[in-house]
Formats: sequence, C-alpha cells, structure tokens
Amino acid sequence: MSSNTTATNKQNIKKVVLAYSGGLDTSIIIKWLEENYGCEIVTFTADIGQGEEVEPAREKAKAAGVKEIYIEDLREEFVRDFVFPMFRANTIYEGEYLLGTSIARPLISKRLIEIANETGADAISHGATGKGNDQVRFELGAYALKPGVAIIAPWREWDLNSRESLMKYAEEHGIEIDYQKQGKKSPYSMDANLLHISYEGDILEDPWTEAEDDMWRWSVSPEQAPDEPTYIEIEYKKGDPVALNGEALSPATMLETLNKLGGDNGVGRLDIVENRYVGMKSRGCYETPGGTIMLKGHRSMESLTLDREVAHLKDSLMPKYAELIYNGYWWSPEREMMQKMIDESQQYVNGTVRLKLYKGSVTCVGRKSENSLFDEAIATFEDDEGSYNQADAEGFIKLNALRLRIASQKGRKLL
Amino acid sequence: MSSNTTATNKQNIKKVVLAYSGGLDTSIIIKWLEENYGCEIVTFTADIGQGEEVEPAREKAKAAGVKEIYIEDLREEFVRDFVFPMFRANTIYEGEYLLGTSIARPLISKRLIEIANETGADAISHGATGKGNDQVRFELGAYALKPGVAIIAPWREWDLNSRESLMKYAEEHGIEIDYQKQGKKSPYSMDANLLHISYEGDILEDPWTEAEDDMWRWSVSPEQAPDEPTYIEIEYKKGDPVALNGEALSPATMLETLNKLGGDNGVGRLDIVENRYVGMKSRGCYETPGGTIMLKGHRSMESLTLDREVAHLKDSLMPKYAELIYNGYWWSPEREMMQKMIDESQQYVNGTVRLKLYKGSVTCVGRKSENSLFDEAIATFEDDEGSYNQADAEGFIKLNALRLRIASQKGRKLL
Amino acid sequence: MSSNTTATNKQNIKKVVLAYSGGLDTSIIIKWLEENYGCEIVTFTADIGQGEEVEPAREKAKAAGVKEIYIEDLREEFVRDFVFPMFRANTIYEGEYLLGTSIARPLISKRLIEIANETGADAISHGATGKGNDQVRFELGAYALKPGVAIIAPWREWDLNSRESLMKYAEEHGIEIDYQKQGKKSPYSMDANLLHISYEGDILEDPWTEAEDDMWRWSVSPEQAPDEPTYIEIEYKKGDPVALNGEALSPATMLETLNKLGGDNGVGRLDIVENRYVGMKSRGCYETPGGTIMLKGHRSMESLTLDREVAHLKDSLMPKYAELIYNGYWWSPEREMMQKMIDESQQYVNGTVRLKLYKGSVTCVGRKSENSLFDEAIATFEDDEGSYNQADAEGFIKLNALRLRIASQKGRKLL
Amino acid sequence: MSSNTTATNKQNIKKVVLAYSGGLDTSIIIKWLEENYGCEIVTFTADIGQGEEVEPAREKAKAAGVKEIYIEDLREEFVRDFVFPMFRANTIYEGEYLLGTSIARPLISKRLIEIANETGADAISHGATGKGNDQVRFELGAYALKPGVAIIAPWREWDLNSRESLMKYAEEHGIEIDYQKQGKKSPYSMDANLLHISYEGDILEDPWTEAEDDMWRWSVSPEQAPDEPTYIEIEYKKGDPVALNGEALSPATMLETLNKLGGDNGVGRLDIVENRYVGMKSRGCYETPGGTIMLKGHRSMESLTLDREVAHLKDSLMPKYAELIYNGYWWSPEREMMQKMIDESQQYVNGTVRLKLYKGSVTCVGRKSENSLFDEAIATFEDDEGSYNQADAEGFIKLNALRLRIASQKGRKLL
Repeated sequence: MSSNTTATNKQNIKKVVLAYSGGLDTSIIIKWLEENYGCEIVTFTADIGQGEEVEPAREKAKAAGVKEIYIEDLREEFVRDFVFPMFRANTIYEGEYLLGTSIARPLISKRLIEIANETGADAISHGATGKGNDQVRFELGAYALKPGVAIIAPWREWDLNSRESLMKYAEEHGIEIDYQKQGKKSPYSMDANLLHISYEGDILEDPWTEAEDDMWRWSVSPEQAPDEPTYIEIEYKKGDPVALNGEALSPATMLETLNKLGGDNGVGRLDIVENRYVGMKSRGCYETPGGTIMLKGHRSMESLTLDREVAHLKDSLMPKYAELIYNGYWWSPEREMMQKMIDESQQYVNGTVRLKLYKGSVTCVGRKSENSLFDEAIATFEDDEGSYNQADAEGFIKLNALRLRIASQKGRKLL
Repeated sequence: MSSNTTATNKQNIKKVVLAYSGGLDTSIIIKWLEENYGCEIVTFTADIGQGEEVEPAREKAKAAGVKEIYIEDLREEFVRDFVFPMFRANTIYEGEYLLGTSIARPLISKRLIEIANETGADAISHGATGKGNDQVRFELGAYALKPGVAIIAPWREWDLNSRESLMKYAEEHGIEIDYQKQGKKSPYSMDANLLHISYEGDILEDPWTEAEDDMWRWSVSPEQAPDEPTYIEIEYKKGDPVALNGEALSPATMLETLNKLGGDNGVGRLDIVENRYVGMKSRGCYETPGGTIMLKGHRSMESLTLDREVAHLKDSLMPKYAELIYNGYWWSPEREMMQKMIDESQQYVNGTVRLKLYKGSVTCVGRKSENSLFDEAIATFEDDEGSYNQADAEGFIKLNALRLRIASQKGRKLL
Repeated sequence: MSSNTTATNKQNIKKVVLAYSGGLDTSIIIKWLEENYGCEIVTFTADIGQGEEVEPAREKAKAAGVKEIYIEDLREEFVRDFVFPMFRANTIYEGEYLLGTSIARPLISKRLIEIANETGADAISHGATGKGNDQVRFELGAYALKPGVAIIAPWREWDLNSRESLMKYAEEHGIEIDYQKQGKKSPYSMDANLLHISYEGDILEDPWTEAEDDMWRWSVSPEQAPDEPTYIEIEYKKGDPVALNGEALSPATMLETLNKLGGDNGVGRLDIVENRYVGMKSRGCYETPGGTIMLKGHRSMESLTLDREVAHLKDSLMPKYAELIYNGYWWSPEREMMQKMIDESQQYVNGTVRLKLYKGSVTCVGRKSENSLFDEAIATFEDDEGSYNQADAEGFIKLNALRLRIASQKGRKLL
Repeated sequence: MSSNTTATNKQNIKKVVLAYSGGLDTSIIIKWLEENYGCEIVTFTADIGQGEEVEPAREKAKAAGVKEIYIEDLREEFVRDFVFPMFRANTIYEGEYLLGTSIARPLISKRLIEIANETGADAISHGATGKGNDQVRFELGAYALKPGVAIIAPWREWDLNSRESLMKYAEEHGIEIDYQKQGKKSPYSMDANLLHISYEGDILEDPWTEAEDDMWRWSVSPEQAPDEPTYIEIEYKKGDPVALNGEALSPATMLETLNKLGGDNGVGRLDIVENRYVGMKSRGCYETPGGTIMLKGHRSMESLTLDREVAHLKDSLMPKYAELIYNGYWWSPEREMMQKMIDESQQYVNGTVRLKLYKGSVTCVGRKSENSLFDEAIATFEDDEGSYNQADAEGFIKLNALRLRIASQKGRKLL
C-alpha cells in the first residue's frame, strides 16, 4: 500500500486524473504535472452549480494537449445524494456553518476515482492548498475508495507560493492568461457550488473587519431586499423537499429555486471564524440562501412529525455528524452508519411548511402533516374532556424527584 | 419522606407559601387554599422583569387576609445567576427555543423554599397547570431543595377547568375582578420575564395558522423596524456580556437594554412546535430580543477564543444541558457538574463582538480579543514565511486515511 | 385515550390478559381481579427459560375458572429477537449489569398485547410491584403497542403488602398454597429467564453484607469449579454467535449451552448496587453465565473486524442504549433507530473467537476472521518493507498539535 | 513556530533532552544524536515503577559523555496526579484496556519539557517508533507545553530498522552491549510502569495464537494462584483509594501493594486487539493487577454514593475521555475541562468496599459509606410504612408513555 509521491517515485506515475476547473491555477498544474511527473493527464471538470460554464474547459484542456477530457453535469446527483442526506440531520458545523464546501468534496473524490478506474490512471491530482480542509477531504475520500491511488497535491510540492510566481510560471510556459479577468479578479479566495459560495482571504484575514458589501455575489443585502415579505410553502417527503408552492421540483431545481428566492430576499449571508481540521482558525464569509431556507424548513417539518426522543437523539449526534463531514469523512463506515440511523428517522417527516422570507430572515409561520404527532385534544388549554389526566403529573414529578429528595434528605446541598 | 397532598392529609398542612402574581387566578388560589386546606398563607411575588408592577400585589394580598407578604426585585439575580450561566453554553432546546420560561422557574423554586424555611411553612403552592412543563420545574426544584415539603398544585386538584367556572368562583367568593382587564384580556396564555415573553393557546393551537401580528408585544415586526441597521459592540468577560458600546452594564440592565435594541429592530420572534417533558407537543410563540442577540454575540466571541476541541465538546453536550433545564433539573447534581465544565471553558472568552441588527436579523460583522486564537501568520493565503509547513499535511492525511485504506484493500466497499 | 384504572371505571373493563406464572402471587391476582373488576380473565404463561415447567399453570388456571389459557415456549424468539440484538451493542448498564431482567420484559409485553388483540381484551395485568422497574417496562411496552389498553397493577392497588396478608387472602379465597414450597421458599425475590437469574431482598438489603453461597443457583462457586480450564470456540455471523466448537446451534440452544459451560466454571456471578428508573438505589445479585461469555466473545470478535471509529461510536452510544432497555423503552422509535445503526455495524463481525473459562473468569486467547482488519504487514515490529511510511507520523503529529501549539504560544497554560 | 527537524535545520539544534532508559536502544540514540545533530545531550531517566533500577543509567550516560544527567523517582507523582485522576472516570479504552502505557507518557513529556526549560535545551528526543502511539503521546504533550520545541524521533529518521543493524551500529560505535541480556532478551516489545506491563510483537502478531504462559511477568496464572480467596477492604476519599485493610497508604504504595495482591491471585491479565491512533490494529497483552482491582473498587464505591444521573453522564463521557488519553491529549484544554467535571462528581465518593480476589477474578462483596444514597426504608421489599407511595408509579408511567401512546394512536407501528 506504499504510495508516497516523493521525488524518488515520481517516475512511477503513469497517468493522473486532475480535478480541472479551467482556470489559471489548474491550467498551470497541467503544465507542472507534465514537467515534474512526465505522466499522461486526464482532466475532469464538473458542473456542481458553481455558476460558471464548464464547456470552455474542454478547449483549454485540448489546447494543453490533454487527450482524455471528462466534463459532466453532476448537479442532480450532488443535491440528491449529498446535500439532501446531510440536511436530513439539520447539520451545522460549530453552530453556524452549513458545510457548503465540505459536502461537495466527496462527490468530486468519487468521480476522480471512478474516472481513474475507467482510464487506468494510478494517480489523482487537485488544486487545493496545503493549509486548508479541502486537500484532506479530497484525499481521505480518494484513499477510502481506492487505497493504492497516488495523490499529487502540487500546492504542497511546488514553490509557486505567490500570485507573482504563478503568473511568471504561466508566462514562461505559454499558458494563456485572461488579463482582463485577472485584472478585475476578486481579491478573495472563493468557492461555489449549488449549496453556497464562500469567501476567504484579503481584508477578511482580520476578523474585526466587516466584509465589504460588494463582496457578496449571490444575495442582495437585506437593505436592498424587497419591502414586502415573500411567503413560500415547501412540501417534504421522508425529510427531503419535493415541491415548492405546490409544484414538484427535482433536487437540483429545488435548490436553485430556493437560492434565487433566498438571494432575492437577502437570506443566507454568514460571517464566521471557524476551526479547520488542520488545526488553525480561519475567517470565512458564506452565502447559502437555499440551504438556510431548507434548514429552517426541515426543522419545522420535524418539529411536527418526529418523536421527542428521536429528535433529541438526532440533536445530540448532529455535532459529531457535522464534524465528520467537515473533516472529510463522508466516505467512511462511521458516516454511513450514522446515515442509516438518520434516514431511518425520516420516514414520517412528511408534510408542508409555510415560511416567510423577509430582508435577511426566514421564519416558519405554519406547518401541517398527515403524520403530525401534535394532538390538539391533549395540548389544548381548554377542557380536554379527559384526554389527559392531570393527576398523573403528580406521580410523574414525585418519582422523577425521588433521587433528588433522597440526596437532599441525606444532607447533600445544591445551593 | 411521605408527603402526598391527598385529601386525607390536607389537614396536616399548617402554612403554605404561594407563588402569587396578583392576578385573578392566583387570587382565586388564595381563597381556594383557605377553603380546602384551612392553612396560613404566605404570598411571594417577584419582579423578574415580567413588565408588570409587583407592588399592587401587596394590597391585594392584604385584602385577601394574607399576613406574611414577600415582594422582591430579583432581576439582577435572575440574569446573573441563571440567564448568564445558561448562555455560556449557547443553550438552545430542539434547535430553536432559548428556554426563556424554563430558566426563570428554578429561581422561583429557590425563593419559595427559602421563604418556607424562614416562615416555618411546610408547603408551597403554584398556579401552573397539570399539562405543562412549569409544574415539573417548580416541583422538582422544590423537592431537591427541601425534600419533605408538601406541594399543592390547585390546577391538578380542583374542578375549575374553564374560564367561566373560575369567574363564577371569584364572584361567589368576593374576589375582585378587573372586568376591564378581563374584557380586553389577551386570548393567549402568556408568560414573561426579562429573557422573554411567550404565547400559547387560542388560534396558535392549530400549528398551520400564522400568529396574528398584534399578538406580539415586545418587538415591532421586521416590516415596521427602521430602514437603517443598528450596529452595537458587546464586550465579554469570561463568557458574560459586561459592557455595551463601551459602557459597563449590570446583568439585568444589559439584558433590558438588549431587549430594547432587539425589539426595536424586530429581532427575536420565534414560532415553534416543541416537545414538552410531560409527553405532548405544543405550539408556542416567543419573543426573546436580547437573548437572540446574546446567543449570536457569545458564539462569535467563542469562535475567536475557544480551542476547537473545547468548542466541539461543548456543542456535543449542549443538547443534554438544554434538556436538563427545559425538563426542570436546574437544581440537580448533574446540572451543577456540567456547569463546572462549561464555566471552566469560559476563562478566555473575553473580548468584543460587533453586531448588526436589522429588520429581524442579527449578524456578527467583527470580533476581537486579547485572547484570540486566530493566528494571521498561519491562516494567511499569502506566503506565511514558514509558520506552517504544508508538507506536514501529507502525513496527517495519510495516517488519518490508514484505517480506511486498509479496510478498502481488504475488500470493504463504501459505494 | 383516557384509560385510568381508578375505582370509578373498574366496571368498564370487560376482559383482562394476565401475565400468569402459576405461582401463589399471580394465583391470588386471578381471584382479586374477579372480585374487584368482575371481568373475564385470560392467562398467559411463557417459557422464556426460567427453568420451571409451564404446563402446570394450565391446570391451576383451569381450576381458578379461567377459560382462555395461553401457554407458550418463547425461548427461541427471546434469544433471537431480544438477547442477540442487545448483545450486538455490548450492552452493560452502569458498567456492570447485563440487563437480564430488562430484556425479557418487552417480549412479555408484546405477547400480552397480541393476546389482548386476539381475545378482544381491553386490559392487561401483571404481578410486578409499584417500586420496581418491571412495572415500568411492562406498561411502557404495552402502551406503545396498544395505546388505549387499560393496565391493572394489583400491587399498586391492593393493601396486601405483606406475606402474611397474602397468605390470609389465599386461605380465605380457597387458593391452594403449596405449604411445602412456601416453607422452604427462598428468602430472596428472584427472577429468571434464559439470560439470567436475579436475587434481591432479605439480607441483600444491606449492601455491606456478602451474599450467602447457597443463594446462587445457576453456577458453582469459583472455588468449586474444575481445576482445569475449559477452552471453547464461538463462531460469529453478523455479530451473533452461530456455532460452538464447530457445531451450529440455534439461538436458545447456544445460550443454554453457554449457561451450562459458564455455570460449571463459576462464570457470571455479579453483586451490585444499581439505580432504578423509579429513583431509588437497590442491591441485586445476578448470575449470567452465558451472557458473560457472549459479551467477552462479541467484543473480541469486534476488536478484529470493526473499524476504529465505528467501534468508538458504538461505545459512546452504548450507555444510552443500555439505559433505554433498562428503563423499559425497547418498544420505542429511538431504540429502533439505534438498533438500525448497531445492526448496520455488524455486517463484518464474522469469525471465530477462542475463550478460556476458568474458575469464574472468561478470557479471550485468540480470534480470527476472514473479515479481519488486522494487517500484519503494517503492524509488525519487524521491517515492513515499506507498507507504512514512518515519516508520515511527523506531519500527523504536527497538525494534530497545531491548535495546542498556537494556544501555548499565545500564553495559555496547561500546568 | 517553525520547528521541523529536517536535514536542513539539524545544525540549529544546540541541546537536546533525551528520555533515556539506560538500555541499548537509547544508548545508541545518544551516539546517533551526537553524530547527526552534533548537539549537547541531557539525559532524563525516571523511576515510574517499571521495576528496573534507574541509577545504573547514570554511569552509562557518563560513560557516553553526557554532562547533564537527570535521574528521578516519579512514582508518587505518577500515581497521584495521573493514575488516580484517570481512575476517577472508570476509564477503559475500547471496553478492555486500562491505558497503562498511555497514562505514563504525559508525565514523561512534562518532565522532558521542564528539564529543557531548566537546561536551556531547544529540543527533546525519545526512543519511540514511528508506528506506535507513544511518539504521538510524547510529542503532543511536548508541543502543548512548549510550542517552539524541536523534537527528534530517531526511529523515524534513521535506517536502523532491524535488530541486526542496531547491534552493528553499537559495535561500530563502541557502545557496550550486555550480550548476556541480549541473549536472553524477551522476544516481546515490553513497557512497564507502576500501573502495568505490556507485551507486543513476536508470536503475538498473530491474533489467533495464545500467549505463552512464561511471557507473563507480574502475575501468576490463575491456575497457579492460591486455592483460597483473598479478601481486602479499600477505603476511598473523593474517589481515590487512601487505605487498604485499615492502613493508610500513599498513592504509589497503594498501587504497589494492590499489584502484589492482584498478581499473587492471577488478577489483571488481558489479551486484546486494539485500534492505534495512527490507524492500524495491533495485538497486545497486558498485566494490570492493581488497576483491575482499583477499577472494580471504584465502580463499587460509586454505585453506592453517586447520583444516578451523575453516574450516567460520567459513563456516557468516559469513552471520549479514554480516547483523549489513549491518543495523547492529556495536556489539552478539553481533557482539563472534562477532568473538572469528573473531579466535581467525586466529592461524595467516600467509604469502603470489600473485594474478593480469587484465581484471576475480582468481585465486590460489600460496600458501605457515610455518603451512601442507598435508602433501605425505600428500597425494602417489606412494608416501607409509607416512605414511598406506589400509586405515584402510575402517573410516572402514564406520562412517560404519553408520546408513545399518541404515536401509536396516530398509526405508527413499532412491530
């Protein structure tokens, strides 16, 4: 199982599948891989809703001499098999972050490995840096699915550690630079997919500095949002949103539509400091308009349909589940084991929630379900005609108090 | 330790301390206790920020013949010793509820018992119904602090189960009814203290029905809030807010001020279905303007100053801690044990957060601390001049992947 | 759903299914039910391995005038559907107790309710006292499976609170007393099934007093056990023991055989103080010979075949799962949800363990599996020829230490 | 904070503190450090109860040219500040392992760093291999306590990967080899301290092979143990054992004495497969005679004196706490935070337990305490004269069942 990509075994790598965006950095990686590994290159470019055309990557890859080029639309698979299962758990990392970047990585890992198997490649490569979480997520997934694969992470190997050195390398190797784009390039490090867009770096590196308003790309500011609220109804089946305002939507279309509705109403902006798996804190800003709506909607649907202890058990395990996904363990037996439990809990999470979107906030104003566990006859403040025997409460309290009373009587003090 | 308040031992109770609001219901209880238990009555009325004068309760109690009357302002104690310790844990019940009612009960229990001890009373009484959580919270606390106390819960004993029967009882017993107030009485069952005001009952008993806008009392609707955001800075010491916009504030004043700021900006409205400890679901609406701000502020302060594993451990235990408080176990050894751990974690939670309040939402836009664990030199996207060795990441990933690779190599499939 | 068995609605009960052992206490209950409820009685007697004949119960029930009599051998179902699923989780309550009584109750509840449905009974009845856990387990299960059922718990209703008053009642009502048996009756309250036998009461009520050696019934004392150890091999499939020393055995036969082997070697005695769900501590002695062997065997099988994180996740949830079973929540959605996860983890728990039984102890001395995750090439202390790159450890440690180093560098002290 | 001990910065290290056993391996490391790092060397040798003289290390270090030599007896500190705090939590890793090796490492790390600070050393070094847990434990502790320290782990750097190459290196560098000792050297990799002795390697590398009886060094085999049981009484204060059979003993003396008693009775042998932090499974055998007794004793003491919910909370967190210690995070804020909670729980864990040691097993036969929560009046099977109202149980069960009944009534099926 030895597979270290050290200098000494560079010659052993015959073919590598590269996660290729078509941008400058991964275009440089194509050239650098050729120079340093002398191996065949397969490029893989996926549309997971990042909002940029993927077809242009084909011409660029061809121009760089790549012979095997994979370009795929993975949006439905991404939402159906990754985003939705995660939202069934009401997943939030560190109380705030909706894991928009984290959840996209296992899908990329899976396709990189499948393509490696199809093309007979013995290695994969990606453009994630050595400081971040994404390298971990890509590589843990890849190793879990193909244990003998070699992984080339150029950012951990080369010495092109500044924008200047990258540009110089590009010029020297005849890699086309879209100066127009570079000129107006965002100063932020960004990542986008159907679930979110993220911003890091530049002025955000000081956690005290407020993000500039023109940084945000997917949502209007709450101040710019309409003065009238938007009401929507989402229908859930087994914990997944399946229809919006009465219209059935595919998973990706659902999320796209909710992104639009959320973004228009200033919903889903987030500015946090988070703890990376590699051990450092980082500050990031995120826009997750549709995800923010889905989290509220799902919790509201569950509040009506889940048993109390099931709900509490889910809540107590959620932080662990979120940590697994954040840290890159989607492809692991422990995540699959937890998913079985989570999915089992969702069989009755059916019904409709009514939400109000208004200038940055999303609130639930109604929920109904044929699987509701809300019992009006029992819950009522009015006379319940015997549905509930209030006298039972005395015994309930007495026995729950018994251990406390014994301890107190034996002299233990709580005050 | 036998202390059942059944009919047969009613004659044994000599003196009872009643949690007395001064309202119609607890005024009826005074009369009913006299009639049914023939015991002396001590009334206890506390200002915990419910927003109503407590002094009028004195005259009413006197008029009802009560000789020992306790009226106290507990606002500072309430926030300092109950609200703040709870917020150190980022406590939320079932992902939504800030426990505004739950956290006030243990203070009332404590004072009821202390007054019972001072006055030589052998029983306490309260006006909570037999269907709710509050009876449990009052009584668990009371039993834990005074195991032999008798507890009289009239709502579980009498047959005055409708508004009409109560009014009739009042008339028959010469209890003054403020018809003006009764006439325009809110149709909702409400509870208020410095942390929140709650609404239950009436049209809310259908979870699909949206709350009417004129129900809300502490906040303007987001639509009515100012068109300009309000920025505030909160300073934290050991996890507690101690100054607002540079001005030191006492705990109660801090919360009052944040309530005002939040309420003015439409912050803190909540509409949920929750699971009661007694086993039923209920629908409630809550306004927690200051608490909503404090939760966001505290999380933001922690994000900069808490170690990752400490933060994750806190997150994993929070649901349990919230459940304890919700269920009425504030006065228990397990809650005190958890509090020790939580408080220990707060020693470095010092610094300042900057928050933006706008039409219902509260967002963090900056945070700073002398105890910050954010390390710009390491986190930077620019050249870090050797602070962090990217090559370390390869070994980190390789060993974290080892168990997954072995399993895969031995034929286990994740897909 | 109103179903309180108070005096006022005794007349409403038409037919009751009684968990009938055939002993004096439940024979008295038959008579008492007739007298107090005037309802038809169905008896249900099950062989779950308690070691007493169940057929004699038929004649006794007939003699008491019972017309519908159910006598069933549930041993295989008990072990297959209750004991084995529980052991998949390595379940131990409070670090010691193997839940021998707890796990039998849900099966009894299930059959009581099924028989009630078959016979059109509207109530069930049992002979458990009002102080113990068993009443809770019987009744929670019954309510969960048939929410409208009425439950009659004579021990909570009658005033026959001493042996004398029971004997007097029997004599007065012509219930046959086996004076021989009563005369030599064990002074202990006992309960037995295929998993264990328990002892409570009498001298055990002082936790400092050692149990007398002649109390124990299922095992020889370690001192009396053979001087030569017994070696056995158990084969596991999906976490369940399926063959012993090469011979395939049914679930019940497996447990019976292990009970014999364990008992002969003094294995499985336990003397503990435990915390009951109703709030008091109690002292109990237990013999669980086969269960003690199964626990060791299962853990050993898992140690070779389970992924580390799966094993740790199971361990972290086990106390919760044990508590659920102890408290009587076998028939609950949360237990079923956890079972799904536990069962999912067992797909590779296949192989054989070799155990040594000797004078009270059971130790694992070998384990093997075609699904072993033990990798000799990697684990060896000898030269592994490159299977594992020791240099990876440096990066692994460095990044795991990063957060600790940053904190230390910023002045935080651990000493 | 850059401190990578790569070839390029070897020249930067001025002085290193070496954890020196006096054995061949660490004697070779002295020479190797001189050759490869050219730095001053400080040796540190500690008596933590491994059962070998430490003074001979002084002469050997002198002979090797070492000028600063630390030889210390840390036995009391080891047991008082590390072993006892761990046992307060009933700590077991993966259901079996008492963490004998793990708990000694943080003490060594602490002293290495303190000596580095005293002597002005900028590095530490140890003789742990690159495959094991100990490197991780040493280094995480060191980095946590002195973030800028350099760490030299020769086993990860050199190519002396076999016994032969080590012997050859020793001969070539004039390092004295005790051929007598080498000749009869145990084939196992062993580690010992006051808590345990461990064995790994050689025939143990096949998990199916039983350990040979002459491998074990600290205990007689159960078969060889006395035919009469040994009874002992241990007194506990705040969760720590303080007296044995009425005689007050210091922590180290307590553990030494229990080791003798346990070893004489064949108590404490263990043979397991465990999951290392670095990702592989390994098979180890352990003797922990005193620790096995202490675990049983402590659990028994707690069973009488701990509140139920406190005990359950401890149990639910124990696996996490054990994992922290196993993985090397003793010196971390999360461990300290958990310790605060654990220690808080121990204030009433006072009293005496009576244990029986017999041919490999340790059983509790009695326990008593002035802080006992066992209430005979309530627990009794006899008439309790009203201490406990059995009727309370009905309400207790009814309300606990309410959510289950509602779900069932609304059509949800558990069967």
